[in-house]
Amino acid sequence: MPPFDVPEGDPFGPHNLPYGVFSLPGSESRTVGVRLGDHVLDAGAAARALSSPYAAVLSQPTLNPLLAAGRTTWSDVRRALTAWLTVPSHQQTITPHLHPLTSVTLHLPFEVADYVDFYASENHARNVGQIFRPDAVDSLTPNWKHMPIGYHGRSGTVVVSGTEVVRPAGQRKPPTDPAPVFGPSTRLDIEAEVGFLVGTPSPMGTAVPLSSFRDHVFGLCLLNDWSARDVQAWEYVPLGPFLGKSFATSVSAWITPLDALEEARVAPPERTHNLLPYLDDTAEEPSGYDLRISVAINGHVVSEPPFSTMYWTAAQQLTHMTVNGASLRTGDLYGSGTVSGPSERERGSLLELTWNGRDPLELPDGKRTFLEDGDEVTLTAWAPGPDGTRVGLGEVRGRVVPNPSGGVSGR
Amino acid sequence: MPPFDVPEGDPFGPHNLPYGVFSLPGSESRTVGVRLGDHVLDAGAAARALSSPYAAVLSQPTLNPLLAAGRTTWSDVRRALTAWLTVPSHQQTITPHLHPLTSVTLHLPFEVADYVDFYASENHARNVGQIFRPDAVDSLTPNWKHMPIGYHGRSGTVVVSGTEVVRPAGQRKPPTDPAPVFGPSTRLDIEAEVGFLVGTPSPMGTAVPLSSFRDHVFGLCLLNDWSARDVQAWEYVPLGPFLGKSFATSVSAWITPLDALEEARVAPPERTHNLLPYLDDTAEEPSGYDLRISVAINGHVVSEPPFSTMYWTAAQQLTHMTVNGASLRTGDLYGSGTVSGPSERERGSLLELTWNGRDPLELPDGKRTFLEDGDEVTLTAWAPGPDGTRVGLGEVRGRVVPNPSGGVSGR
Repeated sequence: MPPFDVPEGDPFGPHNLPYGVFSLPGSESRTVGVRLGDHVLDAGAAARALSSPYAAVLSQPTLNPLLAAGRTTWSDVRRALTAWLTVPSHQQTITPHLHPLTSVTLHLPFEVADYVDFYASENHARNVGQIFRPDAVDSLTPNWKHMPIGYHGRSGTVVVSGTEVVRPAGQRKPPTDPAPVFGPSTRLDIEAEVGFLVGTPSPMGTAVPLSSFRDHVFGLCLLNDWSARDVQAWEYVPLGPFLGKSFATSVSAWITPLDALEEARVAPPERTHNLLPYLDDTAEEPSGYDLRISVAINGHVVSEPPFSTMYWTAAQQLTHMTVNGASLRTGDLYGSGTVSGPSERERGSLLELTWNGRDPLELPDGKRTFLEDGDEVTLTAWAPGPDGTRVGLGEVRGRVVPNPSGGVSGR
Repeated sequence: MPPFDVPEGDPFGPHNLPYGVFSLPGSESRTVGVRLGDHVLDAGAAARALSSPYAAVLSQPTLNPLLAAGRTTWSDVRRALTAWLTVPSHQQTITPHLHPLTSVTLHLPFEVADYVDFYASENHARNVGQIFRPDAVDSLTPNWKHMPIGYHGRSGTVVVSGTEVVRPAGQRKPPTDPAPVFGPSTRLDIEAEVGFLVGTPSPMGTAVPLSSFRDHVFGLCLLNDWSARDVQAWEYVPLGPFLGKSFATSVSAWITPLDALEEARVAPPERTHNLLPYLDDTAEEPSGYDLRISVAINGHVVSEPPFSTMYWTAAQQLTHMTVNGASLRTGDLYGSGTVSGPSERERGSLLELTWNGRDPLELPDGKRTFLEDGDEVTLTAWAPGPDGTRVGLGEVRGRVVPNPSGGVSGR
């Protein structure tokens, strides 16, 4: 198949062009790749072949140099790539640098600086509030409508799609037991999220206003915030989630540049509370995104969370994260929080889908409350693109493997 | 003064030898330094002059390569440095590479991977519980005696001693107001802590047992976990501290290797609850440390927190942090949590020292509830060394500067 000949309507057509990092069989050498259909372009090699000024920034083992180059370069590189992959006169030069996706290994595409996770879906926050705090007057905490609530997670355990996830062990305290017990988590869950990737840094002591969102954030990816609900429930008061989340966070191998998602921009849901001026986005361009996510367990779709329902936008999250003067670094990653829509089939976690195990899901291979060893979870998504096309997001896939017995003596 | 002639009893004598990173005046070039008295040895230059096999690992702009080299190398390098700085025949070769401390610039000595902060002082946890949850039956949360409670902080805002701290802005909600207000924090606080620095990494999916603490942790430093109490109080339910802490964390410029603190090792306080086997340290060598900390505001000592009173040890924190399978990376930093002893003059935060502002401190320059602009906070510490000596820890110093008005339009 001639590689330029991407089928009409392919969600990874030349209107998309997400970035990743790959290596060829038998090689340790990682380099920037750009996806076209079911091929990946060795972007650095193509740039060198065409004597492009972007050869240096694309001939790198991570996306970080490109991320750090800033918005003008991001647009220029995208324009160049689009030309290389669509103008017929380039075909002969470009073709040798296109490799079938099935022949390459995809890697974590960027070095993660700080990882922050938010909690921006009102449906998710209300569901969790009802499940964990059934006696509370309001299922939302009093601060929820005033700020995007977030916390820092572990950057060192952010892994690329396809990485196996070892079932975590930890403490849990069954309500009927007087003391906690230790063992592999019995309530291993997923959270379907969207991750936003910071390119341009900002200095300490300054805040990034809403209007600068697109100057700092390069693109987005799908993200699965694996969660051990039993560990989390016992540990999280008063300092928040720690070991219940820190064992693994999976991201897609492809980063979709925001420039590919212009047609997907939507206004966020109407706000029920007045926002403080620094978060008030009524005068800004819309920075919600209409991403249609699918969650599948062992190939069976269990939920379709709509990202357009998120109460807080990625722009508000970025501004909030820096309003205290915290700096941004190239490679900072922040998750949207679990995406849950208003309906039952739109919930982004098993906690919500099974109402904390009360209502098991019926899968072709049996009932599920939480994940079993061997289960493979896949998140996919698409967004509206130009002229009725779809923009595909890279999938996030991860299979649960058993916790090894032992490892800590006497446990 | 001949640089080998360190005064008898100097807490930075040849029994100490902490590591840092410095540059010489007019130079951008950073390299590893070792402190001896009030001088710093250019360790890489000395190693090259002596044709040492450690020249490469010491001729680096950060400590990370040395940290990654592992425990055997740490011991070997320390033995070599001790010889270079104490054996008279080396004096002529070494002297040109010793620079007065006053002539160099000290930098953040390592690249921070993940930053975790614990909450390991029972006195601190009880004080905070009584202040924030006065109606609770127990001032400790039910999990506190079963695990070292911790959370992830922001690595990107870890700064070296001497860095000015811009007063953070943020949301706070006075109890009498119906909605939050925005502005510079009015309750800016410190937390006197000890930071532990991971050298040897560990793979995902495995736990690090208590007995391996010294194989992974290279050394320790003083740490000031600056905290905006008003921001923290409004934001922290349910996901824990975020913007109330993420604006700045200061660490000392000198990392004291654990090998310099053998005489300071002490058993932690007697445990009141049985511990799960993975945290049970009764059969382990003691991994508490007898560090005597001083907290000064504008040069006036306000507290002397004793680190030996910490309920959870750094070894238990390391094991807990990895028991879910989370990996360690070279450069991971974890804070002990605020160090507070049982008596009033041993509390490690203004929150506790002033009982949330109720009992102001009387300083020579006036009363203090929380920090004022211009205040300089300095943490110092020492530990018992061999033969009655003291091992000095590098100080952590930071001055509060005003929040700039503006920065976010309309705020």
